[in-house]
Amino acid sequence: MISNRKLEHLQLCLHSDVEYKKKTGFEDIELIHKALPEVNKEKIDLSANFFGKKMDAPIIISAITGGHPESLKINRELAKAADKLNIGMGVGSQRAAIENPELAPTYTVVRDEAPDAFILGNIGAPQIEYAEKAVAMMDADALAIHLNPLQEAIQPEGDVDATGYIESIKKISETVDIPIVVKETGAGIKAEDALALENAGADAIDVAGAGGTSWAAVETYRAQDHHLGEAFWDWGIPTAVSTIEVLESVKLPVISSGGIRTGLDAAKALALGASAVGIASPLLKEAYTGHESVITAIERFKEELRVAMFLVGASNIEDLRKSDLII
Amino acid sequence: MISNRKLEHLQLCLHSDVEYKKKTGFEDIELIHKALPEVNKEKIDLSANFFGKKMDAPIIISAITGGHPESLKINRELAKAADKLNIGMGVGSQRAAIENPELAPTYTVVRDEAPDAFILGNIGAPQIEYAEKAVAMMDADALAIHLNPLQEAIQPEGDVDATGYIESIKKISETVDIPIVVKETGAGIKAEDALALENAGADAIDVAGAGGTSWAAVETYRAQDHHLGEAFWDWGIPTAVSTIEVLESVKLPVISSGGIRTGLDAAKALALGASAVGIASPLLKEAYTGHESVITAIERFKEELRVAMFLVGASNIEDLRKSDLII
Amino acid sequence: MISNRKLEHLQLCLHSDVEYKKKTGFEDIELIHKALPEVNKEKIDLSANFFGKKMDAPIIISAITGGHPESLKINRELAKAADKLNIGMGVGSQRAAIENPELAPTYTVVRDEAPDAFILGNIGAPQIEYAEKAVAMMDADALAIHLNPLQEAIQPEGDVDATGYIESIKKISETVDIPIVVKETGAGIKAEDALALENAGADAIDVAGAGGTSWAAVETYRAQDHHLGEAFWDWGIPTAVSTIEVLESVKLPVISSGGIRTGLDAAKALALGASAVGIASPLLKEAYTGHESVITAIERFKEELRVAMFLVGASNIEDLRKSDLII
Amino acid sequence: MISNRKLEHLQLCLHSDVEYKKKTGFEDIELIHKALPEVNKEKIDLSANFFGKKMDAPIIISAITGGHPESLKINRELAKAADKLNIGMGVGSQRAAIENPELAPTYTVVRDEAPDAFILGNIGAPQIEYAEKAVAMMDADALAIHLNPLQEAIQPEGDVDATGYIESIKKISETVDIPIVVKETGAGIKAEDALALENAGADAIDVAGAGGTSWAAVETYRAQDHHLGEAFWDWGIPTAVSTIEVLESVKLPVISSGGIRTGLDAAKALALGASAVGIASPLLKEAYTGHESVITAIERFKEELRVAMFLVGASNIEDLRKSDLII
Ligand SMILES: Cc1cc2nc3c(=O)[nH]c(=O)nc-3n(C[C@H](O)[C@H](O)[C@H](O)COP(=O)(O)O)c2cc1C
Ligand SMILES: Cc1cc2nc3c(=O)[nH]c(=O)nc-3n(C[C@H](O)[C@H](O)[C@H](O)COP(=O)(O)O)c2cc1C
Ligand SMILES: Cc1cc2nc3c(=O)[nH]c(=O)nc-3n(C[C@H](O)[C@H](O)[C@H](O)COP(=O)(O)O)c2cc1C
Ligand SMILES: Cc1cc2nc3c(=O)[nH]c(=O)nc-3n(C[C@H](O)[C@H](O)[C@H](O)COP(=O)(O)O)c2cc1C
Repeated sequence: MISNRKLEHLQLCLHSDVEYKKKTGFEDIELIHKALPEVNKEKIDLSANFFGKKMDAPIIISAITGGHPESLKINRELAKAADKLNIGMGVGSQRAAIENPELAPTYTVVRDEAPDAFILGNIGAPQIEYAEKAVAMMDADALAIHLNPLQEAIQPEGDVDATGYIESIKKISETVDIPIVVKETGAGIKAEDALALENAGADAIDVAGAGGTSWAAVETYRAQDHHLGEAFWDWGIPTAVSTIEVLESVKLPVISSGGIRTGLDAAKALALGASAVGIASPLLKEAYTGHESVITAIERFKEELRVAMFLVGASNIEDLRKSDLII
Repeated sequence: MISNRKLEHLQLCLHSDVEYKKKTGFEDIELIHKALPEVNKEKIDLSANFFGKKMDAPIIISAITGGHPESLKINRELAKAADKLNIGMGVGSQRAAIENPELAPTYTVVRDEAPDAFILGNIGAPQIEYAEKAVAMMDADALAIHLNPLQEAIQPEGDVDATGYIESIKKISETVDIPIVVKETGAGIKAEDALALENAGADAIDVAGAGGTSWAAVETYRAQDHHLGEAFWDWGIPTAVSTIEVLESVKLPVISSGGIRTGLDAAKALALGASAVGIASPLLKEAYTGHESVITAIERFKEELRVAMFLVGASNIEDLRKSDLII
Repeated sequence: MISNRKLEHLQLCLHSDVEYKKKTGFEDIELIHKALPEVNKEKIDLSANFFGKKMDAPIIISAITGGHPESLKINRELAKAADKLNIGMGVGSQRAAIENPELAPTYTVVRDEAPDAFILGNIGAPQIEYAEKAVAMMDADALAIHLNPLQEAIQPEGDVDATGYIESIKKISETVDIPIVVKETGAGIKAEDALALENAGADAIDVAGAGGTSWAAVETYRAQDHHLGEAFWDWGIPTAVSTIEVLESVKLPVISSGGIRTGLDAAKALALGASAVGIASPLLKEAYTGHESVITAIERFKEELRVAMFLVGASNIEDLRKSDLII
Repeated sequence: MISNRKLEHLQLCLHSDVEYKKKTGFEDIELIHKALPEVNKEKIDLSANFFGKKMDAPIIISAITGGHPESLKINRELAKAADKLNIGMGVGSQRAAIENPELAPTYTVVRDEAPDAFILGNIGAPQIEYAEKAVAMMDADALAIHLNPLQEAIQPEGDVDATGYIESIKKISETVDIPIVVKETGAGIKAEDALALENAGADAIDVAGAGGTSWAAVETYRAQDHHLGEAFWDWGIPTAVSTIEVLESVKLPVISSGGIRTGLDAAKALALGASAVGIASPLLKEAYTGHESVITAIERFKEELRVAMFLVGASNIEDLRKSDLII
């Protein structure tokens, strides 16, 4: 049953309009043109360290899928790209494979195809008791724990008892020995939650804010009665706002994601202080065509990021993170 | 003659565009997503006390009708819903039945159908001398005194001597022994008026602000010459603005109404500090189809309110009223 | 030759789009609804004193025409309305009749038809030496001296030597024994100019600001090369802005005009502190149909003003001028 | 090969939409109407001194072309206009003629046709070693060094090593004995860069900001893959913003250019404090028709500037530079 839902989700994200109507907020942020960059664009260094692992660019393919035959193909293509480009990649919620171990290969294909890439396992906060099994299944570099109360609230079969999450994260963070990244799934994280997560022992926060894929939108199409999904279609904290809020309230590394669509968006997120950016939906679309398409899309994205860095006079990511912005 | 006008009003509200072009202001207010709600949505408690009576949700069907055979049907359907859902309900101005007692059943049907619900009688400020008769007619829990100078000014037959209202309200509040709710009808109440009403002995204020049904709009269609109604179509204080102004100036409980269309609007009004919300026009439309339609509409509305509460981490109405907002 | 130009102007104002694209600024100003007006609308008093003369409403038909056979008809119809309604009226520039006395009747018809109304003579600042002749021709209550550098600059035959105007106004104000009203013609007056005029002895200022008839627009149609008129179509200080600026900088009575189109605009201008409002173009259109049309238009305008006064709780113009506004 | 690229650039600027979608910022700046200008428009003096040379108006035809047979014709027509009107003119990058001396006449035609006008040579920062040859080729009054990292970054064949520019400008400014104007090409100059240029010995800055011709746009059409050009189409500091920033940070004379389209834009730039304005793309279009068209366009532009000066009461450029503005 999870499997069917997953397939529906994939297909809705591919073929229907499931984007927020409101924006990420990055369109209101401007990097400042430097007519005298004093940088050689060809020598710009996009590499970044994330929990001790060096990536060739501060880009993570956000958690998308696993648990369905279709997922195997998608994860393989995404992982080939992650391997080739040496960037990060997350798998979708591993719950399916924990409840039905036959499905494990739809996840582990990622590590097979990308033996050296930074890979994140994934489990939902409602299934946090599966955390150690999730870690064991994958040879992951970090474990993402996702929060998605919006989707859970809209989907009829959703798990809407959100009590005790912080306590569980605290426990898990003590037992799991790889870094824990707590992520939203498109509605963003507010300062207060970020602080609670820092105190609970989270090692990084992925804001996954509003402005890209809207899970209320996705569930609108699945519901018989559309009123609820429509009322909450635009619910959430815009990604740029959430990125700023979280960076200002905690010391943890922050992944900025949710509606990141160009290397220029990425440059803005990094200039705000993010450690990396995440992208889901646009890469899912490319994965259907194959890993070459994923690679081409990310190469374009990197070139846009590189041009933005050139034009603000930043020769590496640390420089970029010190750039001026106008908000 | 009143009867005919009432019928015209009902039909205009059903079939013509009589909404304000300007908004309630709630679209500029955002509740803040809490990725870690620490609440079980299934245990969220929507109940609220209003003048000692417990309602299953802080929702009042605003004053709509009475005094016409057509009203009987509408009031019966609305009352059945109010009874079933245990929410509040107001009747329309009782003037007609006081001047012509044969019409009383078009009002009293409400109490017959909803013996335990919180029911508000209704009389216009120009007919305030009928207040005691209005109370006597209905076994009401509170008496609403409505102010509608905008409509009175636009309709040719309007009563435009608005002197002495405050004095009369003061007197009535001493003689009537149920709580007095002073309400507007869609143009809102300003701080100064709220203060005058508090001093005059009003027990609650229903702002009935601008952004929903526009009585200037309704009267535009009835007038031979449209210039006046068109010039004042958008006259009034937006509901969110009026709600904030009144809450900041008096200590009385406040009903926020006028253009409340979703449970998300309601959540914002309650988070501002309102004690309950009121809805008129959308429920009038449902009432024509029957009480099941009214019930379905309100259930959707409640579910939206519940989801909003879940997503800000409020497990009951008092919690919600302490939630953060961005204006 | 002046005559032909005047006819062209009249026809362009009647048949072409000669309005500013930018607004008067009154749409950003809101009067505040008073649900408890404590006023009897039927007893609202619109009368106002202007230089010792009582008008039944603080409304002036702004300077429009004279000097052409067509003008005679227009001025007669406007004057009949001014007489009937006991409001103010200005004639157009009297230069034509001073240079060609045969044309005097096209102006004096106004006093003939409106023996008791408040009538303003009119002369342009470039022809200020005609001021005494202008006063002598009409049995005027005040003399308007108009400033129109925008139109003079755009029209090929314009008088563009604008030096010495302040000095001339100073001299004239000493010799002319009726009040002098200095008015713009649609581009507004700034604080600094208002101060200079007060010091030069002007008795009142008519801001005639931007947002209504645009003289750059009118001259665009007349010019062979449209670039100049188009570039300056929207040049000028919006009426609401100019009204506020002038009121804040001088103690003189202020007429607010330029784009005043409804009694609600008028109510806002008066609430800002203006002593009266002026209207030109809309009444010119009515005058072609006859004085009854002019009267109907002004009666509607007055009713809108009266409703606005009722809804803010002002029983006379002085009360209105003390009303609160939101800008 | 440079020649072909130049032809492509010319043709794209003529026939495709290569303008920024965002605005210059001048539309948010208003000059303030002066109803009493106290100026004789016929005596307004537009003349301005630039590095000791008197121009009849503070207008410079910005650097456009050279190096291609087509350029010869364009430069001849532009130069005839510059000569006739006694205004400034820049040639395009002289690199082509330095690398291929046969092409020199396509530049020197400018001095031949405009023996007395203020002429600027031009060399790109990446070819700054050609500076002295560029000066020698032309009998120039000043040398423009252009910065165009945006275009270099987008065009596949671009020179993207932008290191050492400031150092080179410092050296060149010591050896070249005519004034050095450092200019952008449409993306603007920020305060920090302006300061570095002042310290490096630049004699003037031409901001050439965003809002007019977009070089990212031009290169979008030339590229096989449009993503990069589209992402950066609107990159850059709006001209009005850059003009203000540079004026506030350095004491050098500033040329305001990039999207200057009317004499009203020019009046605003000068009122901000600029010493002159520059125009490229609109004059390129006129040059194809011939120098009379260029002259007509500039005469219109001057008349618009003159009217703006009249309407703010400025009788010469120095007066205008002291005028009030609303931003
Ligand atoms: C089809 C699909 C499935 C997803 N499944 C998961 C998931 O299992 N776990 C998770 O943490 N996020 C999941 N996400 C959320 C993404 O990781 C990401 O946070 C979100 O889509 C916003 O990014 P975007 O705007 O770039 O798509 C999924 C997204 C998509 C499009
Ligand atoms: C058909 C109709 C009749 C109404 N009659 C009354 C009335 O008699 N007394 C009253 O206080 N309000 C009356 N109202 C006003 C409503 O109670 C409410 O304040 C107003 O319609 C704004 O709410 P809404 O935007 O949800 O419709 C009436 C509204 C409608 C639509
Ligand atoms: C056809 C026409 C002729 C005008 N002639 C004069 C005039 O001679 N003298 C004058 O002071 N104003 C003249 N005006 C300007 C008006 O008095 C008024 O200031 C201006 O039209 C703005 O008001 P409005 O927007 O209500 O039209 C004229 C206006 C119009 C439409
Ligand atoms: C076809 C074309 C060629 C140009 N070539 C040069 C050049 O060689 N050197 C230079 O400094 N600027 C060059 N420019 C930039 C202009 O000087 C100017 O800064 C820019 O076009 C913005 O002004 P505009 O919006 O008025 O076109 C060129 C512009 C155009 C349209």
